[in-house]
Amino acid sequence: MAKIVTFGELMLRLSPPGYTRLFQTNLLEATFGGGEANVAVALANLGEDAAFVTKLPDNAVGQGAVSELRSFGVDVTKIVRGGSRMGVYYCEKGASQRSSTVLYDRAASAIAEAKKSDFDWDRILEGCKWFHITGITPALSEGMADISEDACKAAKAYGATVSCDLNFRKKLWSSQRAGQVMSRLMQYTDICVANEEDAEKVFGISAASTDIEGGKLDHEGYIEVARQLTERFGFKKVAITLRGSISASDNNWAAMLYGGGKAVFSKQYPVHIVDRVGGGDSFCSGLIYSLINGDDDRKAIEFATALSCLKHSIEGDFCRIGLQEVEGLLASGGSGRIQR
Amino acid sequence: MAKIVTFGELMLRLSPPGYTRLFQTNLLEATFGGGEANVAVALANLGEDAAFVTKLPDNAVGQGAVSELRSFGVDVTKIVRGGSRMGVYYCEKGASQRSSTVLYDRAASAIAEAKKSDFDWDRILEGCKWFHITGITPALSEGMADISEDACKAAKAYGATVSCDLNFRKKLWSSQRAGQVMSRLMQYTDICVANEEDAEKVFGISAASTDIEGGKLDHEGYIEVARQLTERFGFKKVAITLRGSISASDNNWAAMLYGGGKAVFSKQYPVHIVDRVGGGDSFCSGLIYSLINGDDDRKAIEFATALSCLKHSIEGDFCRIGLQEVEGLLASGGSGRIQR
Amino acid sequence: MAKIVTFGELMLRLSPPGYTRLFQTNLLEATFGGGEANVAVALANLGEDAAFVTKLPDNAVGQGAVSELRSFGVDVTKIVRGGSRMGVYYCEKGASQRSSTVLYDRAASAIAEAKKSDFDWDRILEGCKWFHITGITPALSEGMADISEDACKAAKAYGATVSCDLNFRKKLWSSQRAGQVMSRLMQYTDICVANEEDAEKVFGISAASTDIEGGKLDHEGYIEVARQLTERFGFKKVAITLRGSISASDNNWAAMLYGGGKAVFSKQYPVHIVDRVGGGDSFCSGLIYSLINGDDDRKAIEFATALSCLKHSIEGDFCRIGLQEVEGLLASGGSGRIQR
Amino acid sequence: MAKIVTFGELMLRLSPPGYTRLFQTNLLEATFGGGEANVAVALANLGEDAAFVTKLPDNAVGQGAVSELRSFGVDVTKIVRGGSRMGVYYCEKGASQRSSTVLYDRAASAIAEAKKSDFDWDRILEGCKWFHITGITPALSEGMADISEDACKAAKAYGATVSCDLNFRKKLWSSQRAGQVMSRLMQYTDICVANEEDAEKVFGISAASTDIEGGKLDHEGYIEVARQLTERFGFKKVAITLRGSISASDNNWAAMLYGGGKAVFSKQYPVHIVDRVGGGDSFCSGLIYSLINGDDDRKAIEFATALSCLKHSIEGDFCRIGLQEVEGLLASGGSGRIQR
Amino acid sequence: MAKIVTFGELMLRLSPPGYTRLFQTNLLEATFGGGEANVAVALANLGEDAAFVTKLPDNAVGQGAVSELRSFGVDVTKIVRGGSRMGVYYCEKGASQRSSTVLYDRAASAIAEAKKSDFDWDRILEGCKWFHITGITPALSEGMADISEDACKAAKAYGATVSCDLNFRKKLWSSQRAGQVMSRLMQYTDICVANEEDAEKVFGISAASTDIEGGKLDHEGYIEVARQLTERFGFKKVAITLRGSISASDNNWAAMLYGGGKAVFSKQYPVHIVDRVGGGDSFCSGLIYSLINGDDDRKAIEFATALSCLKHSIEGDFCRIGLQEVEGLLASGGSGRIQR
Amino acid sequence: MAKIVTFGELMLRLSPPGYTRLFQTNLLEATFGGGEANVAVALANLGEDAAFVTKLPDNAVGQGAVSELRSFGVDVTKIVRGGSRMGVYYCEKGASQRSSTVLYDRAASAIAEAKKSDFDWDRILEGCKWFHITGITPALSEGMADISEDACKAAKAYGATVSCDLNFRKKLWSSQRAGQVMSRLMQYTDICVANEEDAEKVFGISAASTDIEGGKLDHEGYIEVARQLTERFGFKKVAITLRGSISASDNNWAAMLYGGGKAVFSKQYPVHIVDRVGGGDSFCSGLIYSLINGDDDRKAIEFATALSCLKHSIEGDFCRIGLQEVEGLLASGGSGRIQR
Repeated sequence: MAKIVTFGELMLRLSPPGYTRLFQTNLLEATFGGGEANVAVALANLGEDAAFVTKLPDNAVGQGAVSELRSFGVDVTKIVRGGSRMGVYYCEKGASQRSSTVLYDRAASAIAEAKKSDFDWDRILEGCKWFHITGITPALSEGMADISEDACKAAKAYGATVSCDLNFRKKLWSSQRAGQVMSRLMQYTDICVANEEDAEKVFGISAASTDIEGGKLDHEGYIEVARQLTERFGFKKVAITLRGSISASDNNWAAMLYGGGKAVFSKQYPVHIVDRVGGGDSFCSGLIYSLINGDDDRKAIEFATALSCLKHSIEGDFCRIGLQEVEGLLASGGSGRIQR
Repeated sequence: MAKIVTFGELMLRLSPPGYTRLFQTNLLEATFGGGEANVAVALANLGEDAAFVTKLPDNAVGQGAVSELRSFGVDVTKIVRGGSRMGVYYCEKGASQRSSTVLYDRAASAIAEAKKSDFDWDRILEGCKWFHITGITPALSEGMADISEDACKAAKAYGATVSCDLNFRKKLWSSQRAGQVMSRLMQYTDICVANEEDAEKVFGISAASTDIEGGKLDHEGYIEVARQLTERFGFKKVAITLRGSISASDNNWAAMLYGGGKAVFSKQYPVHIVDRVGGGDSFCSGLIYSLINGDDDRKAIEFATALSCLKHSIEGDFCRIGLQEVEGLLASGGSGRIQR
Repeated sequence: MAKIVTFGELMLRLSPPGYTRLFQTNLLEATFGGGEANVAVALANLGEDAAFVTKLPDNAVGQGAVSELRSFGVDVTKIVRGGSRMGVYYCEKGASQRSSTVLYDRAASAIAEAKKSDFDWDRILEGCKWFHITGITPALSEGMADISEDACKAAKAYGATVSCDLNFRKKLWSSQRAGQVMSRLMQYTDICVANEEDAEKVFGISAASTDIEGGKLDHEGYIEVARQLTERFGFKKVAITLRGSISASDNNWAAMLYGGGKAVFSKQYPVHIVDRVGGGDSFCSGLIYSLINGDDDRKAIEFATALSCLKHSIEGDFCRIGLQEVEGLLASGGSGRIQR
Repeated sequence: MAKIVTFGELMLRLSPPGYTRLFQTNLLEATFGGGEANVAVALANLGEDAAFVTKLPDNAVGQGAVSELRSFGVDVTKIVRGGSRMGVYYCEKGASQRSSTVLYDRAASAIAEAKKSDFDWDRILEGCKWFHITGITPALSEGMADISEDACKAAKAYGATVSCDLNFRKKLWSSQRAGQVMSRLMQYTDICVANEEDAEKVFGISAASTDIEGGKLDHEGYIEVARQLTERFGFKKVAITLRGSISASDNNWAAMLYGGGKAVFSKQYPVHIVDRVGGGDSFCSGLIYSLINGDDDRKAIEFATALSCLKHSIEGDFCRIGLQEVEGLLASGGSGRIQR
Repeated sequence: MAKIVTFGELMLRLSPPGYTRLFQTNLLEATFGGGEANVAVALANLGEDAAFVTKLPDNAVGQGAVSELRSFGVDVTKIVRGGSRMGVYYCEKGASQRSSTVLYDRAASAIAEAKKSDFDWDRILEGCKWFHITGITPALSEGMADISEDACKAAKAYGATVSCDLNFRKKLWSSQRAGQVMSRLMQYTDICVANEEDAEKVFGISAASTDIEGGKLDHEGYIEVARQLTERFGFKKVAITLRGSISASDNNWAAMLYGGGKAVFSKQYPVHIVDRVGGGDSFCSGLIYSLINGDDDRKAIEFATALSCLKHSIEGDFCRIGLQEVEGLLASGGSGRIQR
Repeated sequence: MAKIVTFGELMLRLSPPGYTRLFQTNLLEATFGGGEANVAVALANLGEDAAFVTKLPDNAVGQGAVSELRSFGVDVTKIVRGGSRMGVYYCEKGASQRSSTVLYDRAASAIAEAKKSDFDWDRILEGCKWFHITGITPALSEGMADISEDACKAAKAYGATVSCDLNFRKKLWSSQRAGQVMSRLMQYTDICVANEEDAEKVFGISAASTDIEGGKLDHEGYIEVARQLTERFGFKKVAITLRGSISASDNNWAAMLYGGGKAVFSKQYPVHIVDRVGGGDSFCSGLIYSLINGDDDRKAIEFATALSCLKHSIEGDFCRIGLQEVEGLLASGGSGRIQR
C-alpha cells in the first residue's frame, strides 16, 4: 500500500575507483542503480512512502539489490523473484574533456525476460497515489513494452497520477520503435519529463536552435517543445531538464516546468560534478515530491532542480539527500559553507 | 605457433574482499579466470610458450581480459572477438566450516554462443605440440560440444598430445549428457585428469569405499578407477587429484599418476588455504610442464602436486608461481622458511 | 507485530583492518553491533520476522544504524530516536597468542540514559511470541535495569517466551549488582543461556573443575550448573555454550541444552576464527529459531551450535548465514568443500 | 620548555572516503584534529618548537592521538591523561552546492570534564614565548572556561604573547555566554583572530554590509570591525580571515591584519578545495610563525594567508606544509607548476 | 620488428592515494612510468605496433614492469635484463596552489649503468620506421649519452624517422651539459618536440616575452623559437606544447607545429587535471601516430593536442586512451557528455 | 641521553596487500623497518627510553621514516641526515608451503655510504646504559664495518652493556667475511643473540644433528653451541632463538638463554603467523628489557620469548606490543580469549 510506486529495471553497477579506467586497478565499486529504482530511493530519502517493482533473480546478487533498497526504507515486498540473471552496467567516471562511459551488460536479464503473469497490478497498485515509469522500462523487450502499458493503464484506473520520464536510450531501441511504444504509454501519462534531446529522439519534436554543447539554453525553444508535446498527448504538465555541458567536470543545470499554457524556469546552478548518473532521476523525484505535497509549479521546479543539483555531488546512482538539505540550498543559494 | 594451446571459457571473476560475503562491503575484487585460461597462464609463468583460445566480446570487459592474459605473456592472438557478453562468476571465499561458494552468471556469453566458423583450427593449432581442454568447455552449449570435438580432433591430427581434465560441473549439465559428450572427446585424449569424483559423475566409474569428506584416501580405489578409465578409453596416462577436505581452511592435497599399468602417488601436503580455486588447473599445468619437458611419471606427479600445492597460497584463479619456487618446494619439503 | 522482539544496545563498531592494531593505518571498518541486535539480524537472515528495540540518537550515526538493520529486513519501527549519542566500541582482532581486544566508549549513550516513558511496551510487544534480552541491557544503567524488568514482565504477560543470555560484562557492573538485578529478570525467563563462566560470575553457581583455558570440557560440571540454575529460577531450559580456547585463531566450539532434567550435548567443532564477536549471540539466535519452529532439544542444540560455528567465519557482529548453509553444515559435517 | 604552547581539545575525526556520505561504504578515515592542536602541528611542520596541552583518556584511542601528534614532533609531554573518553567528530566532505557537514560527539569528553587541578600552568608554561587558544576551548564546559582564563593569565604573567582565535561555534554555546566568557579572556589577549562572522556573533561587532555568500568582501567594513575590537579590548593586532564562498568546491581566500591603526590586506587566492577544515587554524599558525620570527605586518599577513591557502589542498585537519612550500607560493604566485 | 621503437628509462612510480602527502597513509599506488615508455604505451593503445627498449633488473620489480608493458601489447622482447635496481620516483599530486612534486630515486639504476654492449641496435631496430627518444635518456649517465647517440645514428641509418622530445630536467644535468649532448643527438633528429621552456634551457633559444605563469601564450614568440631551432639543426618539424598553468588543478593546453616555414596552432583546451604527468609524452605519441599515418600538419597538431588533453584526465603515467576517444573529442569539441 | 641506543639501517618496506604477490594489485603497503630500529621501537612500546641511530636522506622519504619512529616516542635526535637514498625492501608474505620472500634494494643507500665522521659517538652515547647492534649493520659496507666497531668500542668505554644479534644475511656478505668482521665486534659484546643457523654461518660453530626443517629442537646441541661461543668470545650470556618451521603459516617458537655455564629454555609456543619479519628483533628487545630491569635468566628468556611470540601476530616490522600484553601472555599461557 505504498503511496508512490515506480516500475523498471535495477542493475548491478560496477565502477572503477575514482577516475581510473575499467580494470586499471583490481577493484570495482559495486552498487545498484536504475532510473525507476533511483526515483524510489530518492523519495524514500525525502521521507515518502515509496515502493519499487521489478523482477530480480533469486540469488545472492538479486538479494544484494533487495537489501540495498531495503536499507533506504523502500518497500521491496512487490519485487518478483526469478529469472536467470540481473543486468550489470559498468560505469567509468569521466573528467574534463573525457566523457563518462556506460557499458551495459543486460542480455537475458530477469526483467527483460519477465512475463505478463509475473506482475499482479491489482495487488501491486492498491492504494497507490502516484505511479512513475521511464522510457527504459518498455525498451527492455517486447514483453516489457506490453507490461509497461498494462502498468500505466492499471495505475490510471486506480486514480493514480502517472509520470513518465522519456529517457531515450539509443542502445536499447530505435527512435522509430521508441515513438510507437511510448505513444501508447503517453495516453495514460499526466506528467511528462524529458531532457533537451528526448522529445526529438522519441517523437520528432525539436527545440529549434538549441545548442546543447555550448551550454546556452534557448527558453523559447523549450516552451515550444513542451507546447507541442502537450498538444499531441494532452499532458497536465511537461518538465524539461536543461543541462549545459561545459565538460565532464562542470555542467550548468536548470529546468523548466510547463503546464496550463505557462512555463516557469528554475534557477540555473553551475555544478562541479562528483557523479552525474541519476541526475535526471533525482529531478523526477523532486518533482513528484513537490507536486504530491501540493506545491505550485514555481516551487516544484525549484525544488526538483535543487534536489537534482545536489545529486550531482553524490557518488552512485542513488540520491542520498535529505529534505533539510534541499531546503537549505533553496534558502542559501548554494554557497556551500560548512555546516557545523 | 604456440607450443601449448588451451581452449575454453574465460570469465570475469568478482570476489568480495577477504572473508566478507557478497555486498557486505561496496567493493569487489575483479580478476579473470577459467579452467583452460588458468592452465595457459600457469604454463606461461613457468616459462612455456602457451596460447589461449576463446571468444570474448569486443568491449572494455573483453579487452580487460585480453590485457590481463597478455601481462603474463600468454599468446592472445588466437582469441576471437565478438558476441554480446562475457561470463561472470561471483566467488565468496569460505573459512573453517563455511564453504567457498561460486555463483555463475554465464547466460548468453560469447563463448557459449560461439559458432563453428568462429575458430579456424588449422590456423590456431599450427605448430602446436600439446592441446589441453576440460569438461567445462563442451558443457557450455551444444555448439561448444561440437566445437570442442573439432578442436581435439584437429589437435590429434596435428600430432599434438591431447590432455583433458574431466572437471564435471553439475550446474552445467547432467551426468548423462556429460558422459555422452565427454566420451566423444575421450577418443582423442592421451592424458586424462580427474578429481576424486569426476570419473563417477561423468562415466559412472567409482573409487569404491573412498571417504572424501574424512580426508582419508584409498590408494587401491584410485588405481582401480584409473585402470578402468584406461581400459575404456585407451589413455596413455590417467592423473587423479586427491583432495582431503578437512575444512574450508585446511585441506590435504596429493595426486596419483597412472600409466603403463603402474601408479605413482605424490607426497601429500597439508595446505592452509588462501584460495583453492584453480587448484586442479594448476595441477594440470604442472603435469603438462613436466611431461612436455620429458620427465618420468614419478617426477611429473611430484612436480604437478607441488605446483598445485603452492597455488593454494595464491589469491585468484591464476597460478602465479615460478619454476624456482616449485623446485624450492620439491627440495625443501615445504617448511616455508623466509627467503632472504 | 513482529513475532520475535529483542531489546538492548546497538553500538557503532570500529575495527582496524585485518590484524592491524588501532590507528596502525588511517582506516577503520565501521559496522554496527550489539548482543540483542545481533540476535534480531541473525533471525531475519534465517527468514524470521524479528524486531529490534533500542534508543538511538536522531542524527546521521543513529540513522546509519537504522539503515543497516533495515537492510537485513529487521523491523526498526519500534526504535526510539533521541538522546545525545550512540555508544561506540573499538575492536582489535587478535591472532595466535594475541587476544582480541574490545574498548568500549559508552558514556552518555542514548540507551543508557533512556527513560521508562521512552518505551510503550504494550505497543511494542503486541503480537510478540518470543522476547529476547541479555545481561548487557540491564547493566547499562540503573534506569535500564528497571526498564529491562518492565519489558520482561510485559512480554510474559503477553504470553511470549522469554529468553535471556546472562552475558556478564565485568566492565559494566560487579558480580554482586549483576546477581541482584538479573535475579529480578530471571523470574520472567523461560530459557536461560550462559557461557562457561556466566553462571558463576552472576549467580555464584560454578562448574566444578572446568579448565576453560585448556580446551577440555567437563560435561558433568555443566549439567550440574544447569540443574542448579533450573532449581533456583525454574527455567524451562538452560543452554550453555562451551568454548575451548586454544588460541585467538583456533577454538573448539560446542554447547549443551538442559531441560526436563536431561542434557543433550552438541557436536564439537574445531573452528578457525575469522571473527568471534557475536558467537554467543548467533547461538541464541539458532536456539530461538529452532525452538520457535518446534524442534526437539537434540535438533535445537545441533542447529544453534552449527549456526554459531558458522558465525565464527563471518566478519563483523552480524550473523550473515542463511538457513540452507546451516542445514548444509548439519548434513555434511563441515568439510568445507567448495559449493559450485 | 616549548617556545609555543597551544591549549584545547583534540578529537578523533572520522570521515567517509572521498565524497561519499557517512556509512555509504563500510570505511571511515580516522585521523585527529582540533583547532589548537592543528596550530601546534602546523608550527612543528614549519620547524618551530611547539607543545600542545589537553587532557586525553588513558586508553588506545588517546594513545593514538598522542602518537599522531608525536609523529610531527609536537611536544606531548604536557598532555594530561585520564577521563573516560575522547571527543569524536564525523566529517562529510561537501562538493559543489552540497556543504561539508560536521557532526560532533563530544559528550563526557576528558577535556570537557577536566578539573583545574589537572593543569599545572607553572610547569606547562615554563619558557613559553607564545600561547595560543581559541574560543572552542572555554566553550567546552564551565570548568574549561575558568581553566582557559587561568591559562591565559599565567601565560601573560610569564611574558608570553597571547593569541586567541574567536572561533565561535553555535552548537557549543550562545552568543551571550560566548561574549561573557570571551571578554574575560580578551583582557590577556595580544593578537585576536576572527573570521568574517565571529566578531558579530561573539561581541556584537559587525562588518556593515558584508555579503559573505556572494564572495564579495568589503574592506572598509573589516577595518571598522578591527578598529572597534581594538578599542574595546586593547589588542596589539587583529587579524580577520576573509572567505568568499562560491561553492563547497571553490572559495576565495584572503585576510587582513590590523595593528597600530593600519590595515594590510593579503593577496586573494581562488582555492579549489581538497579539505577546508583547519583553514583558519593554519592561518593562525602562519601568523604566529611570521610574527614570532619578527616579520612586519605585510609579510605576516601574506605568509599566513599563503600557508592557509595551501592548507585547503591538504586532506585532514593537520597542515602538512613545509616552510619551502609557503615561500614557493609567495614567490611564484600560485600557478601550481609541477616541481621536478 | 616493431614499427615504432622508443628507448629510455622506465621507473617504478609510487604515489600516495588521492591528494594525500607521502606517508600520510600507509598505502602507495605502484605503477610504472617514464617518458619513452609512456610513448610506447600510448601508441599501443592507439593500435600501433610499438616496442620499448631499456635495461631492467632481473628481479620481481623489473618483471612487474615488463608485465605491465606487456598488458598493453607493447613489444618487450628487446628489453635487456640485468643490473642491480630499477629507478623509483615518488609522485605527490598537487591541487589548487600546491604544486605536484616528484622525488627521484634513480641512483645506481640498471639503465643509468648500462653499457654499450647491452644493446645490439642492428637487431633492435630491424624493420623500425620511427624511433623516439627524449632528453632524459642521455641525461641519465655519460654512458647513456653515448648509447643514445648510437641509437639515433643507427635508427637514421635504417631509414627511420627520428623524433626527440627535449624534456630538460634540471635535477639530471646542467643546461650547459644538456646543450652539448643534445646537440649531438639533434643531428639525427627529424622531429623536435619541446615545451615552453626546453629550448631556452637546453639551447639558449628563448621565446621572448612569454609569461608561462600567467597562462597567456605568445604565438609569435613560439614561432620564432621553432624557426631558430630549425635553422640551427635542420629539423623537418618542430612541435611546441603550450601549457598555461592557472593552478595545479586547472591548466590551459595547446600546441604548435612548425614545418616548412609555417606554423599551425591547435585549439586550446581548458583542462581540469586528474594527473598531468605524461602529458607531454602523450602529445609526442599523438604526433607520431598522426604523422606516421600520413596526416597533414593541421590534423597532426589537433590530434596530438586532443590526445594529450585527454591524458590529463587519466591516472598514472600511461595514456589509456583509444583512437575512438580522440576522434570523439575532435568531433565534439569536448563537452564531456556521458556516452551511453 | 637515551638509556638504550641501537644503531643500524632503516629501510622503506613495501609489501603487497594480504597474500597477493608483488604488483598483483596496484597497491603497496609502505612502512619502515630494519633490525636495530625494530628493537628501538619495541623498547619504546614497552615504556623504555630508546634512541635509534642511522643516516637517512634529507628528503620526504627519510622524513617519513623519522616521523614514523617519532610516533612511537623513539628518540630520533641522533639520526644523521644526508646521502642520496634510503634502502628499500619488498616483502611478500608467504602462506602454507609458499615461503615469504624479501627483495632488497639497498644499493647506494645513505647508511651504506656513511662516513666515520658522520657519527660523533661521544655525543650519541652520552648516558647510554645499553647499546645494541646486529650483524646487518657492519655487513652494509666496509665503512660500516669500521663504524660499527667504533660504536661498540665507544659504548663499552661508556660502561654500557653491548648486545649483538648475529643476524647473518648471505645476500650481504660471505660467511668468511662475516666471521672476520663479527669477531672484531664480539670483543666488545656482552650478550650475543643468534638463531639456529647464525653461529654456524658466521663462526662455523654448529649445533650437531639439529633438524631445523622438521620443527624438532635439540636442546643439547644448542647448549653446546652457546658454550663454544662463550668460550671463544667471553660473552656474559648467549641467547638462541629456536624456530621450528612447520610451514609459512605455522611455526613453533622458543628460545634458550645460556649464561654462567647454565642454560634455561623457554616455553615453546605454536604460532599461527601474521607477519614473522622482526620476530628475532622483538626477541632481542624483550631480552634487553628484562635484563636491564634486573630480571633473572629464567624470567628474561620467558619474557623475551613471549614478546616475540606476540610479535608474530602483528603486521609490519615493528613490535606493537605493550607491557601488559606480555604479562598477560605469561600469566594466561596463550589461550587468546577475548579481552572485554
